[in-house]
Amino acid sequence: MSTIVESRVRDIRFPTSKELDGSDAMNPDPDYSAAYLELRTDHPDGLEGHGFVFTIGRGNDVQAAAIEVVVQRFIGREVEPLLDDLGSVWRELNNDSQLRWLGPEKGVMHMAIGAVINALWDLKAKKANKPLWLLLAEMSPEELFGLIDLRYLTDAVSEQEALNILRRGAEEKQARIDRVRAEGYAAYTTSPGWLGYSDEKLERLAREAMADGFPQIKLKVGANLQDDIRRVRKAREVCGPDFPIAIDANQRWDVADAIEWVRELAPYDLAWVEEPTSPDDVLGHAAIAEAIAPIPVATGEHVQNRVVFKQMLQAKSLQVLQMDACRVAGVNENITILLLAAHFGVRVCPHAGGVGLCELVQHLSFFDSIAISGQLDNSRMIEFVDHLHEHFLTPVDVHDGRYWPPEAPGSTAEMSQPSLARYEFPNGAEWATTDTPVGVSV
Amino acid sequence: MSTIVESRVRDIRFPTSKELDGSDAMNPDPDYSAAYLELRTDHPDGLEGHGFVFTIGRGNDVQAAAIEVVVQRFIGREVEPLLDDLGSVWRELNNDSQLRWLGPEKGVMHMAIGAVINALWDLKAKKANKPLWLLLAEMSPEELFGLIDLRYLTDAVSEQEALNILRRGAEEKQARIDRVRAEGYAAYTTSPGWLGYSDEKLERLAREAMADGFPQIKLKVGANLQDDIRRVRKAREVCGPDFPIAIDANQRWDVADAIEWVRELAPYDLAWVEEPTSPDDVLGHAAIAEAIAPIPVATGEHVQNRVVFKQMLQAKSLQVLQMDACRVAGVNENITILLLAAHFGVRVCPHAGGVGLCELVQHLSFFDSIAISGQLDNSRMIEFVDHLHEHFLTPVDVHDGRYWPPEAPGSTAEMSQPSLARYEFPNGAEWATTDTPVGVSV
Repeated sequence: MSTIVESRVRDIRFPTSKELDGSDAMNPDPDYSAAYLELRTDHPDGLEGHGFVFTIGRGNDVQAAAIEVVVQRFIGREVEPLLDDLGSVWRELNNDSQLRWLGPEKGVMHMAIGAVINALWDLKAKKANKPLWLLLAEMSPEELFGLIDLRYLTDAVSEQEALNILRRGAEEKQARIDRVRAEGYAAYTTSPGWLGYSDEKLERLAREAMADGFPQIKLKVGANLQDDIRRVRKAREVCGPDFPIAIDANQRWDVADAIEWVRELAPYDLAWVEEPTSPDDVLGHAAIAEAIAPIPVATGEHVQNRVVFKQMLQAKSLQVLQMDACRVAGVNENITILLLAAHFGVRVCPHAGGVGLCELVQHLSFFDSIAISGQLDNSRMIEFVDHLHEHFLTPVDVHDGRYWPPEAPGSTAEMSQPSLARYEFPNGAEWATTDTPVGVSV
Repeated sequence: MSTIVESRVRDIRFPTSKELDGSDAMNPDPDYSAAYLELRTDHPDGLEGHGFVFTIGRGNDVQAAAIEVVVQRFIGREVEPLLDDLGSVWRELNNDSQLRWLGPEKGVMHMAIGAVINALWDLKAKKANKPLWLLLAEMSPEELFGLIDLRYLTDAVSEQEALNILRRGAEEKQARIDRVRAEGYAAYTTSPGWLGYSDEKLERLAREAMADGFPQIKLKVGANLQDDIRRVRKAREVCGPDFPIAIDANQRWDVADAIEWVRELAPYDLAWVEEPTSPDDVLGHAAIAEAIAPIPVATGEHVQNRVVFKQMLQAKSLQVLQMDACRVAGVNENITILLLAAHFGVRVCPHAGGVGLCELVQHLSFFDSIAISGQLDNSRMIEFVDHLHEHFLTPVDVHDGRYWPPEAPGSTAEMSQPSLARYEFPNGAEWATTDTPVGVSV
């Protein structure tokens, strides 16, 4: 038996706003950040569980404070009973009646639960000496069923239907484990498309993305229609008529704006339209999806929990479900969301980028295709942005336009200690030597 | 000209879990709390603006940290330009791109914006030497229009429609100002109905509520069907066949559970069914409302923002809209929500109770009936719970089953300094002498 002896929560920020990497119509100057949790144990191997919430700067300290409050209860508890029943741990955290008032199940408190749950999964996978994706893929349907919570979902999927999906997913899964290892997993890239980039940079990066083998690129839109028409047209010219180009409005539009704007861009052939409006607007997304069909609507990176995803699937608000590893309450809730997507027959193409989102979410996609949806074609792709991977002990391996699965034990969410020290806000070396205190300015 | 010179954010908690006041099916042991903001100015009259977020215990420190982050930008800014254009202040806060990532517009960060906005309104009303309800009621339709933000709402209500509602509301409003002062405003009480109370206490308090002149009571339900049948039957026996009795499930049910449970209780004649399921479930509420009609569905205390209210109105998910003074981004967003309710012809009966929610929300109800809906009949009622009012400088005046409007300047949200000192967590006298550290226990 070992015990969780200590937690440390750190406010880690990267001054990305200096370069306009990551700029879009709603987020002109993000400082990619992580409220970062380290869970220490007295296990003889020095096992630690790491997890984090991705944010874009200001408020990362509030997110860290929320993780502190959630994680406290685990200090002094034995590791093995926790790791053996992460379904109960998930329910304990989500049903804390006092903390629940602060959501419920949304925003800062919900993401904090996600960081803690994900750190426990990191610990579990390290202890099992397996990468998280494989640990999940090798669990039985019944074990997986014990991890999820169908509360508020049973009008869409019954317990029996959920179990049936898991049992179907388990059939011949070893073949899919082998295929993911042998063939990797499709990636698409957003790197060419940031709003702050010049047309020349967009064209150069689009060419490079194709040369690198990516099967799709994505452009940020939504600030100015004429600019968007020009940028999408240029991308289409560079990429040729058959190459998939998606657009992402980052919630910029009202319903009518979205429909009008997409009609102007539709002649350039859009692979999907991402986050056209408020992520809370199930009915608005449904109206947009109906109006712009057959162009698919994609959303999810800001969808707060499984209850909103359920409704988006019921209402046909989305045709591409963009799971995020840090937005909801961790691995368990994302398994539930993957089940919902499979039940409704909607493909999952996770949101990634930021800090560490690629490292973390790849495990969930591999697991989805191996053990839930069972689908391993190129219609399921993971977003890829080539930022900040160097800070992780096991950076994602993306080449030839594909993610290649890690074999390192754990969730590959662990950042290097020198990076953590350098980017800790506000006293790390990076911030001490930065002129503009971006993280606190208005 | 005066300047905002200082802010103080305090973690105030009341150990209400000791008495089971406020217990319901989801919240068995709340410690009613406030993340409490004081904004100080150098105005010669010593003007201060006070605002708060109501929580139920653990995590109140996270909520306080969020208010700290939001309020920082105002320190050193001139008071008058802020108070003259609170519409722009609201947009500045809600569109802070980095903070927005932590919601957007939901949970801890959104409620923090609400506390800051409400403190500025308290300041504005004190400076005008008027109670907040009167300050709002006397604003012109055009001034009110400048306060709201229809982003993400224009598929439901256009700018012109919003302005028309405000202009209609302004017609003959002086007569309604006079009527609210002369006749008060209907209240209903939840005091008899907490789940932790014995049947005898329920019956005694129900009798007292009727004797006190309240036109409706509400019972908490959802933990055990047989208990609920017994409790609702006893209340019906005590109150007689014509007295309105509402029930409140505090999100306890899935859709099918809600429909089944309400069918069992319907023979006792229900005034409304409150929070039957997840507050995020627009479509679930709509399905429940359709199935249990003509019994109305009431919800709102946990509805995160105007976008979710918009959908609930579009989908007929609710027939009674329960605005909350602290859940959304303050007075401005609540004006927008009142406009939506008026546009859809749905009555507003605010959530109150907790700490200070009665004191704060009464202003919005008076304003609604005077200047937006124009309706001053007893179908619009404010919840009343007789808890913790003694801690406020101007406690609500509720007698003869009605709220009587305050004439004191401000939003009546200001707590007394001795109470703030006594209940500050964890070092106030109340906590230093409490055996159980309820606020930190798991």
